[in-house]
Amino acid sequence: MRHADVAKAERIRIYDVARVAGVSVATASKALNDTGRMTEATRLRVKQTAAALGFRPNAMARALTQNRSFTVGLLTNDTYGRFTLPVMAGINEALVDQGVSVFLCGIEDDAELGAVHVNAMLDKQVDGIIATGKRIDRQLPVDLSGLAVPVVYAFTQGPEGAVTLVSDDAQGARDATLHLTAVGRRRLVHVTGPDSFASVRTRAGAFREVAGDEAPVLHGAWSEAWGHEAVARLWAEGNPPDGIFCGNDQIARGVIDALRERGVSVPDAVSVIGFDNWEIVAAATRPPLTTIDMNLKELGREAGRLILELAEGKPVEPGIRTLPCKLVMRQSCGGATPVADKLEVHQEV
Amino acid sequence: MRHADVAKAERIRIYDVARVAGVSVATASKALNDTGRMTEATRLRVKQTAAALGFRPNAMARALTQNRSFTVGLLTNDTYGRFTLPVMAGINEALVDQGVSVFLCGIEDDAELGAVHVNAMLDKQVDGIIATGKRIDRQLPVDLSGLAVPVVYAFTQGPEGAVTLVSDDAQGARDATLHLTAVGRRRLVHVTGPDSFASVRTRAGAFREVAGDEAPVLHGAWSEAWGHEAVARLWAEGNPPDGIFCGNDQIARGVIDALRERGVSVPDAVSVIGFDNWEIVAAATRPPLTTIDMNLKELGREAGRLILELAEGKPVEPGIRTLPCKLVMRQSCGGATPVADKLEVHQEV
Repeated sequence: MRHADVAKAERIRIYDVARVAGVSVATASKALNDTGRMTEATRLRVKQTAAALGFRPNAMARALTQNRSFTVGLLTNDTYGRFTLPVMAGINEALVDQGVSVFLCGIEDDAELGAVHVNAMLDKQVDGIIATGKRIDRQLPVDLSGLAVPVVYAFTQGPEGAVTLVSDDAQGARDATLHLTAVGRRRLVHVTGPDSFASVRTRAGAFREVAGDEAPVLHGAWSEAWGHEAVARLWAEGNPPDGIFCGNDQIARGVIDALRERGVSVPDAVSVIGFDNWEIVAAATRPPLTTIDMNLKELGREAGRLILELAEGKPVEPGIRTLPCKLVMRQSCGGATPVADKLEVHQEV
Repeated sequence: MRHADVAKAERIRIYDVARVAGVSVATASKALNDTGRMTEATRLRVKQTAAALGFRPNAMARALTQNRSFTVGLLTNDTYGRFTLPVMAGINEALVDQGVSVFLCGIEDDAELGAVHVNAMLDKQVDGIIATGKRIDRQLPVDLSGLAVPVVYAFTQGPEGAVTLVSDDAQGARDATLHLTAVGRRRLVHVTGPDSFASVRTRAGAFREVAGDEAPVLHGAWSEAWGHEAVARLWAEGNPPDGIFCGNDQIARGVIDALRERGVSVPDAVSVIGFDNWEIVAAATRPPLTTIDMNLKELGREAGRLILELAEGKPVEPGIRTLPCKLVMRQSCGGATPVADKLEVHQEV
């Protein structure tokens, strides 16, 4: 296995740099921080010495000087991490090159635990806090308004006037439904989660925009079991659908398993699309699931970029930013033609 | 929703404490740090003032004094987080009360990215690093030996002489197999992952200790598809098993789905046990899956406890610590009697 170098054992200190460069510690420090008065030749010599010795400034000391800790806190109540892990990966991607590290704090729905973690973050003088969660229409159980550090909300509800990032659920649901029509499906049904979720209402609205106001929307739990039950109900009624758009991948998995057990072929007789692109579910479904990806990694990247701008005092317009979803083609939908072309045609209609 | 208090906007500073208590900043600082000379009355007055004002010392300044940053780095190459998230939850549980926060860094199998994250951690003077991953017989792609900070390895391979925590795969596999015999199963088969995994060999060995040296062990991928294929193969051969111990929950899910599709009842005709207790898979399986839980949260708690002891300079014996697994009863195995009793009986035989 290949290993890259990391700094070993004894660290080079500012004292070593000063000694080798033949200046005082104070002068060495000022030279490296581009402060104080000295000849450019001295400053250059100190910097070259530091580079040659492999000196890296103590980040905490630097933090005290610059009033920056180069750390960001990430708060989440999403225990399974299915939404938070991609967001975290995106944040890390955006921040690691800037030397910023991320504290991850899972607070579940525990207000006390949330307060403990936020206080620990403030103690460590984080440059900012990113709040994320498991649904976009609920706040975390901790009030982050009025903190001395900037806060960005990603895939969780922020207070009015906050900087908030969400996925474009309406566009994702529209693209899914358009794709069902593009592969020739006409009797469309939406099998989704509880009506109490804002994202459920948004997606159902977008589904009906395309499929028609009378197109059925069935609400149940976010589970495979509900997918099974929905199929039983739809096939008991007669005139079953030929295209099913599901509110998440677990429901879609239940729907597809139930159809197989009835001898209904997916995608030959019925096309199915999920939502979330939860790879571990989508890939194991038979056939593998065509689904909507919320681009949570990109959401995280954007949250990282914004928190950095806020930390550096740059102006960031408050409000809700909506990032596009994308359709991920596997085999549960049929239609071999690249989807992007078809969607463009349909969106122009 | 209930909200707990977190510190708002303007922070109380040491200057405020000093002013209100009527002492110099230096005296106030010494009083709070239990250093310097002063009357106990003065020290008490400063402390009471600090408490009354809600003063919290600047963690970074304190870190510089104490040579502790109260941060720990967690490195992982487990992208999906199925192993890392429970470990992380345990670490946080062990450390949050000590005021320690955790940097989570996903490095996948990228040595360069690993080095970048480790260097960032060292720059931030973490008190220690916990390395974790997705299998216990592979090292992370970054060499952590010889660092100036302590390292604990949890659910990933450490170098010789390191402090390493792993789950007791042999005991877990033994308990699973004993449970199959306890519910009356006699023709046992183990359907598991690739032979190249140390944990696969360990579990297979423990399975045969109980089931007999001739009991079949079938190796394949860590997937539902392999579970299907294994059932097809076993039922084609004649004399099919009545108890199947699977190497992970995904294989078990495939096995159970394949048995249902053949009209073989689980658990009436065949008992199935998984491994991992990956809730999202285990709970959705029909019937829900009885499986082995590796207690990864406890592993994380222990890793947190050990890294703290090392950071505080306490002696910690190097070597591999093995933590017990536990059997989680759902419905895929039959046998209503509490399992612990039966296992004890069997273990005494």
